[in-house]
Amino acid sequence: MTVTQSELVLDAEAQALLFREARTANTFSDEPVTDEQMRAVYELIKWGPTSMNQQPLRIVLLRSDEAKARLLPHLMEGNRGKTEQAPLVALLAADTDFHENLPKTFPIKPDAKDIFAEPGFRESNARLNATLQIGYFFLGIRSAGLAVGPMTGFDAAGVNAEFFPEGKNRALVVANIGRPGEDAWSDRLPRLDYDEVVTTL
Amino acid sequence: MTVTQSELVLDAEAQALLFREARTANTFSDEPVTDEQMRAVYELIKWGPTSMNQQPLRIVLLRSDEAKARLLPHLMEGNRGKTEQAPLVALLAADTDFHENLPKTFPIKPDAKDIFAEPGFRESNARLNATLQIGYFFLGIRSAGLAVGPMTGFDAAGVNAEFFPEGKNRALVVANIGRPGEDAWSDRLPRLDYDEVVTTL
Repeated sequence: MTVTQSELVLDAEAQALLFREARTANTFSDEPVTDEQMRAVYELIKWGPTSMNQQPLRIVLLRSDEAKARLLPHLMEGNRGKTEQAPLVALLAADTDFHENLPKTFPIKPDAKDIFAEPGFRESNARLNATLQIGYFFLGIRSAGLAVGPMTGFDAAGVNAEFFPEGKNRALVVANIGRPGEDAWSDRLPRLDYDEVVTTL
Repeated sequence: MTVTQSELVLDAEAQALLFREARTANTFSDEPVTDEQMRAVYELIKWGPTSMNQQPLRIVLLRSDEAKARLLPHLMEGNRGKTEQAPLVALLAADTDFHENLPKTFPIKPDAKDIFAEPGFRESNARLNATLQIGYFFLGIRSAGLAVGPMTGFDAAGVNAEFFPEGKNRALVVANIGRPGEDAWSDRLPRLDYDEVVTTL
């Protein structure tokens, strides 16, 4: 299962940690996830590329029972139990006002902010680039030896109203984070073959 | 710059390869990128998680001059030169008919396909999950020791009409792939601080 492919430079242990042996966890142990771990994850994944260095990802970490109780009613029923049990829950959102940071994050183009004056264009850029960053974030969680349980089964409008009342952030994914618990996953599901996904012209 | 953070399990060399020293390339050497390399990348990143194992990412690899010539007019002018020069270009798209595969890829829920009967819901799921997979794909390219130059500055409607006339795929990102060439990048751009991105409740 963990054959290193000779075309890859990434070592076999890293391949296993990030992809080949990593699994989406549905149960978690009691071991806490620390702020230091989350800082280390962010300091790693912040380097992942975004369009014009937009960096629209915003993360709300829910650790207290009070904070999690605000989220639970907005999740699909089947997702509530595992989220209640997870030691840490990350609410991952796109900031549609990311352009306000561009004078600082993209100084090589001083008028970069003006390109994003139109709200619809800003929203589609924010969603796409925050989602790329969420992909990096999942692999960052695994880089810390933790399991992630991502979920998209929730009422985004309800979550946005509860956690982002100022109206500029869009919840995209909720991710449970922790050490896997008992029976944390079922059998691995099949993946599409290369030739079903890739065409070469 | 490449301090290993003690909270991470991923080794320092892998951290550098994927994140800390990896850079978006704007020029490329003449060295070809092989089909074997791209197969190895896919066989690694196919394991990344998607909602209900949707796997909507579709990849069109443009290697021939003829194939690249079909793409170039749809790119922003500033992106054309580097794409013309790259040994391989990946057109990364979301398949809005991903649900047709669910009986095979999500057999644990036999009616999974029916959940996605509504085209708007299917489109938003396809875009979000294909974009997560694009994040995995970028890190997969780096896992093969190659540089990636992702671009969102292109006319998506034009690209869709040219490459996906059957109407079900949505182009999301174009990525140049190869070994970095001369002056492949400028200075690293600043990233947002943890406290600008993360809130803990």
